[in-house]
Amino acid sequence: MSFKGRDILSTEDLSKDDLLEIMKVTAKMEELVRKEHVSDLLSDKVVAIIFLEPSTRTRLSFETAVRRLGARSISVADAKSSSASKGESLADMARTVEGYVDCIVVRQPQTGGAKIIADAVDIPVLNGGDGSGQHPTQALLDLYTIQKERGTLENLSVGMVGDLKYGRTVHSLSYALAPFNPSYIYCSPKDLAMPEHVTSAVKKMGITVKETGDINEALQSSDILYMTRIQRERFDDQAEYERLKGSYVLTRELVQKGKKGMVVMHPLPRVDEITTDVDDLPNAAYFRQAHNGVYLRMALLAMVMGRA
Amino acid sequence: MSFKGRDILSTEDLSKDDLLEIMKVTAKMEELVRKEHVSDLLSDKVVAIIFLEPSTRTRLSFETAVRRLGARSISVADAKSSSASKGESLADMARTVEGYVDCIVVRQPQTGGAKIIADAVDIPVLNGGDGSGQHPTQALLDLYTIQKERGTLENLSVGMVGDLKYGRTVHSLSYALAPFNPSYIYCSPKDLAMPEHVTSAVKKMGITVKETGDINEALQSSDILYMTRIQRERFDDQAEYERLKGSYVLTRELVQKGKKGMVVMHPLPRVDEITTDVDDLPNAAYFRQAHNGVYLRMALLAMVMGRA
Amino acid sequence: MSFKGRDILSTEDLSKDDLLEIMKVTAKMEELVRKEHVSDLLSDKVVAIIFLEPSTRTRLSFETAVRRLGARSISVADAKSSSASKGESLADMARTVEGYVDCIVVRQPQTGGAKIIADAVDIPVLNGGDGSGQHPTQALLDLYTIQKERGTLENLSVGMVGDLKYGRTVHSLSYALAPFNPSYIYCSPKDLAMPEHVTSAVKKMGITVKETGDINEALQSSDILYMTRIQRERFDDQAEYERLKGSYVLTRELVQKGKKGMVVMHPLPRVDEITTDVDDLPNAAYFRQAHNGVYLRMALLAMVMGRA
Repeated sequence: MSFKGRDILSTEDLSKDDLLEIMKVTAKMEELVRKEHVSDLLSDKVVAIIFLEPSTRTRLSFETAVRRLGARSISVADAKSSSASKGESLADMARTVEGYVDCIVVRQPQTGGAKIIADAVDIPVLNGGDGSGQHPTQALLDLYTIQKERGTLENLSVGMVGDLKYGRTVHSLSYALAPFNPSYIYCSPKDLAMPEHVTSAVKKMGITVKETGDINEALQSSDILYMTRIQRERFDDQAEYERLKGSYVLTRELVQKGKKGMVVMHPLPRVDEITTDVDDLPNAAYFRQAHNGVYLRMALLAMVMGRA
Repeated sequence: MSFKGRDILSTEDLSKDDLLEIMKVTAKMEELVRKEHVSDLLSDKVVAIIFLEPSTRTRLSFETAVRRLGARSISVADAKSSSASKGESLADMARTVEGYVDCIVVRQPQTGGAKIIADAVDIPVLNGGDGSGQHPTQALLDLYTIQKERGTLENLSVGMVGDLKYGRTVHSLSYALAPFNPSYIYCSPKDLAMPEHVTSAVKKMGITVKETGDINEALQSSDILYMTRIQRERFDDQAEYERLKGSYVLTRELVQKGKKGMVVMHPLPRVDEITTDVDDLPNAAYFRQAHNGVYLRMALLAMVMGRA
Repeated sequence: MSFKGRDILSTEDLSKDDLLEIMKVTAKMEELVRKEHVSDLLSDKVVAIIFLEPSTRTRLSFETAVRRLGARSISVADAKSSSASKGESLADMARTVEGYVDCIVVRQPQTGGAKIIADAVDIPVLNGGDGSGQHPTQALLDLYTIQKERGTLENLSVGMVGDLKYGRTVHSLSYALAPFNPSYIYCSPKDLAMPEHVTSAVKKMGITVKETGDINEALQSSDILYMTRIQRERFDDQAEYERLKGSYVLTRELVQKGKKGMVVMHPLPRVDEITTDVDDLPNAAYFRQAHNGVYLRMALLAMVMGRA
């Protein structure tokens, strides 16, 4: 099983073995960073990091991964400075950049856009997020964090809390963790429930799913508590928003009432859905989770360029 | 003949020998990239890449050239984040940056701005495009593409099609290729004809020029067909635009009716003036043309810093 | 006395010995650049350069310092492409980035923001300017320039001219130079006088302060003449602005009437408060001053990361 030359567009393209292989290489990268800080593994490679919509966290994480592996990079950090504004197609942009570099990392707002780019070029493409579609490196770093925090990916009870309707990360996580025999507690206001297509798909895979509006139910039984932000602009009825938002705020007190050893994750940025007094509890894994993104992206870069 | 310390502001400053020397070094750079991917030729140099107007293609191409030669760089990717917005002159900006780096690459919207910068500093300056003025690296990569695709620069028949009035690249190409005994077919709507000052200048150099509105005439006799985009906003009369635009769209069928071995070029970005079914014909050189920009810019960087 | 791990947030945190140590290391860095151009001193380090408000000069100077020391870097060049726009706190942003890098350089518009970041993370933080607060690297490069131009920091008469009310650099310089027995001439329109809290603080330190509206008084007795820009928007009464602005423009003639050996400094960008015919006088130190910023920032980077 070689990843050399492969595109990473969606976690759905990845088998359980693929996922485990990625976890293994990510762990090696973490060790490399701890021991040697930086490496020259990709010192003869040039990577294009093309962000046509803003996302500092993901972009800086990819840039760090590139730097720590010694690769060179060229980058676009926002859409306005790009030729997309002159009407150029994604495919043409990609075919031009293909002649400059050895790998393309792309984030852009069009669902399916990463696939268009991957189809246009022969070099590997890593999807850094495409609109409401896929964001596979987030899902993979979530898996890696779960494995690291819990020691295993198997047989875990995972509570997902907040905006499950629009929260791309909880959809991806629901699929990505599916091969590892999890059970899910989906906890949200009714209007922001997990979409039916996700719920029914995971049920078909034999996964036990419980839906609730009460965060306490999620707290009682979750090995992993995955928090997301509830955005005011998702509500037509602002009074409803004001009424609900407090119910999905995780406090220190709530964490301490949760299942023993419960790991709290969040894709960040956090606004106020986790109070800052949670941050220094050992349960709070969200900053470690962000940091894991670097190791995961190092792994993918090295793998698709045939160096790991 | 040394290029060390020279500014590259305009192709008009370059003699036929200069042009041939640049072609030679560009070919060496292409070979270097194919064989070794990257080099440490400029690993002790720092280059400022200052883009005060957006141009992803040119900027990324320069950044790639810098990376592949192992140089370090600092960059400005848009005007808003620059101190130009505080009223600073180009000359002051340049004199400040001069103390940081060994070479300045600049693109900015003021015609003649690159010359102002070059006059203010002692380090070499490469003009990455100045307003409606010069864009010498585009003209030079066009020359290199012609030489590579046809095996020679001499005695070629070159059709230029589309917006010849505002298309900076076709003006520069008309001058840059002039020393090599070309003939030109200028094909455009009447309102977008090649400016008289260009036409009369190249005629004075003894070049045969044919002007036409019919793309078929260009197809029949062109060794090189250089397409450009016709922009809607150039027309006062939108009905006229709608009537004309179809006449200057290059299709697969048209290419196949063209002169045997005809090479199709385009400065990119393309919108719809070349249909995508042309892309996989061997005649379609426009993506190779874009890729050649990296080798050409590597050559210029190495030459002006005295390393080639 | 080790700087390893220290934050550089304000010159007020630095003792006279600290300042002298920084001057010493800066001189070493300048020598390193002159002799070897670049170094691998920090080749295993990654630095985050986060600019949440535009400042090309300071950003490029830091980027150059990072490059010349062989460090790797990731950067944010404007606020819009950052997650601050999603409501994330500075502390959260910092804790995320902390996992990517070995040092954070930050410029942002909130007074005290650099301190918030430094408190949130364990890695060293360099303040690249925080709102109307501190800009310690500017003050330190000013000190280094004074020492280099005059051979000493001790016993100098320093004239500060222009907008002393809003000019952050002249406040910082007043404090930073205080341990070296200076005397100050503050020269400004009445409405833009040095704030009372600065004047009284330096007087308390035993420094002789003279306040005047007449630039000639400053010229007669200043070893250092530190010019700043008077901005039109500072005046309620535009007629007052028009009447005054000419009185604070430094011309070649005025420089030549000044004290023998007077050194003219300016934090740049300059608009028209120093005429360009001053630039080639030996007194004009402002471009050298800007260039010194690179050496100073190299020194601080190396020092806080324990390599100098």
